[in-house]
Amino acid sequence: MDAVNLKKLARQLKLSVSTVSRALRDSHEISRETKEKVLALAAELNYQPNPYASSLRRQKSRTIAVVVPEIANNFFSLAINGIGSVAQEKGYHVLIYLTHENVSEEISIVGHLLSGRVDGVLMSLSSETGDTTHLAELKRKGVPIVFFDRVCDTIETARVTTDDYESGFNATQHLVDQGCRRIAYLLISPNLSIGVKRMQGYLDALKQNSIAVDEQLIVQGGLDNDQNYALIKSLLQRDGRPDGIFASVERLAISTYHVCNDLGLDIPGDVKIISFSNLETASLLQPSLTTVTQPAFDIGKTAAMVLFKGLDKKSAIADEHIILKSALIPRASTGQ
Amino acid sequence: MDAVNLKKLARQLKLSVSTVSRALRDSHEISRETKEKVLALAAELNYQPNPYASSLRRQKSRTIAVVVPEIANNFFSLAINGIGSVAQEKGYHVLIYLTHENVSEEISIVGHLLSGRVDGVLMSLSSETGDTTHLAELKRKGVPIVFFDRVCDTIETARVTTDDYESGFNATQHLVDQGCRRIAYLLISPNLSIGVKRMQGYLDALKQNSIAVDEQLIVQGGLDNDQNYALIKSLLQRDGRPDGIFASVERLAISTYHVCNDLGLDIPGDVKIISFSNLETASLLQPSLTTVTQPAFDIGKTAAMVLFKGLDKKSAIADEHIILKSALIPRASTGQ
Repeated sequence: MDAVNLKKLARQLKLSVSTVSRALRDSHEISRETKEKVLALAAELNYQPNPYASSLRRQKSRTIAVVVPEIANNFFSLAINGIGSVAQEKGYHVLIYLTHENVSEEISIVGHLLSGRVDGVLMSLSSETGDTTHLAELKRKGVPIVFFDRVCDTIETARVTTDDYESGFNATQHLVDQGCRRIAYLLISPNLSIGVKRMQGYLDALKQNSIAVDEQLIVQGGLDNDQNYALIKSLLQRDGRPDGIFASVERLAISTYHVCNDLGLDIPGDVKIISFSNLETASLLQPSLTTVTQPAFDIGKTAAMVLFKGLDKKSAIADEHIILKSALIPRASTGQ
Repeated sequence: MDAVNLKKLARQLKLSVSTVSRALRDSHEISRETKEKVLALAAELNYQPNPYASSLRRQKSRTIAVVVPEIANNFFSLAINGIGSVAQEKGYHVLIYLTHENVSEEISIVGHLLSGRVDGVLMSLSSETGDTTHLAELKRKGVPIVFFDRVCDTIETARVTTDDYESGFNATQHLVDQGCRRIAYLLISPNLSIGVKRMQGYLDALKQNSIAVDEQLIVQGGLDNDQNYALIKSLLQRDGRPDGIFASVERLAISTYHVCNDLGLDIPGDVKIISFSNLETASLLQPSLTTVTQPAFDIGKTAAMVLFKGLDKKSAIADEHIILKSALIPRASTGQ
């Protein structure tokens, strides 16, 4: 690299590096005449300030980080677009980091963010995240952080989610209303606060309908679609197989469709399916999929607005829980 | 922030800042005894090196950037997972930047990357990108860059794509073989090299089958699904509407399905559809969608491997075009 740096500018102008630096920062200590000379040469030589050096000085990166478990999930891609819409208006860059549902990757990313690389962080936890020491450390170091969707309840800051408990309850009640009595619940992680709330909604809806909980019908999947397929296949091949399936994430609903196709099970005749999902193709599936659709774009947008409010005011982010409602959209997969 | 910095360590140890810094870098100029004292106190006070400062010193961020137009597209999310699989093995962080198909965002991101924020860049162009001065600048400044999918042919570096011309030809030939004579081509951008190649394949296949090109059947959409819907609706409401549609990106195929549902057009009876797509739900759609499926994960993985080969050897990246083949998967939407 034949980088034009402050030293080179200073040498050519016969000025000190500090004078050139202050001139470029438009310091009042430097005369107008000198500033113009410096800026002219900087433009001529196409001087690019070193972002590390200037960030060190200004302690401002005009960059926010978004940390999410994955992007092959329409909820996260829509939420990221919501975040992007706010960041663009504010003139900030958005850096997206993926944890791949892996807590050690999450810890490594947080380490990367720990010492001021970005002005703020928007985060949705990995499904493995139980201990949250690394997140507490980020907060303690003064990095503004707002959680969305998969939030951390133990850290005092803003959290933006949908109404997970009510959505879980309503999805289960919908299956009961459609005649299901053996309702399976498919989840990704027992650690996540939203998973716990969705499942509590499921359990309470069963109870209210005097349906006994069958632990065998609660199945935990992951990111690996082949493994999910195998788990769901074995669930649907059991004696007393479920007549209703409530998938808490869309990839588990997609695997359920593949299993039903391969086992020759009719949806909704043999099994009814409802899923938390922002799939663009939900209404085009054979049969169309009944969904609990989260306001994903708005969740991202709201989380970003809360973060920027804190950044603009240079104040701590309020310890609050903002809840945006999901919509249950009945379609053919539950017999509508 | 009550940051523990080099100065604080130096003060407590009654050493110079430079000695502490060199001790932390394990410099041979510093005695073993001093190093141990410094490391012990650094550990005790939980000293975190400032990444900007240490990157300045080392000129190494152990970070690569991935610049893509969007992530609500399965090709890119899979390609990013392919990149991530290589980066993780190498112990690198991956920063994802989105251009939202917007060339001014792309220029701004490139500006952000220009002065050494990352060790290398993997990039897929925005659909608006015509002039590539900003990319040439990145190359000129010595930032290693590898293009994938939507590549830049005018910059000497590696490019990883699928066999866009052949895939475009084969997709069109497949529609002809299934009886189509009025075949529409739906694209995102006339600027992109891959768009041009796919369309050339379409045009040549028509020619080879003695089908005259009808410019009215070549329709350009974008990121806005409502707009895409309107464009495709007007295409399918015309006199002499197409009997076959070749979508060069999956979002245009999804919009076509919605239009056909709303207009009561039967797929494949009235219109046959084929699309470049990595949709996980392609086989579950009503009817299942015939796709040209790109090896998305492998394209990302290959591009990352080429980049890391350059980084490891500290050598320039070879000016080569690596082509990974796509697969045409016939399904019900083309009458299979």
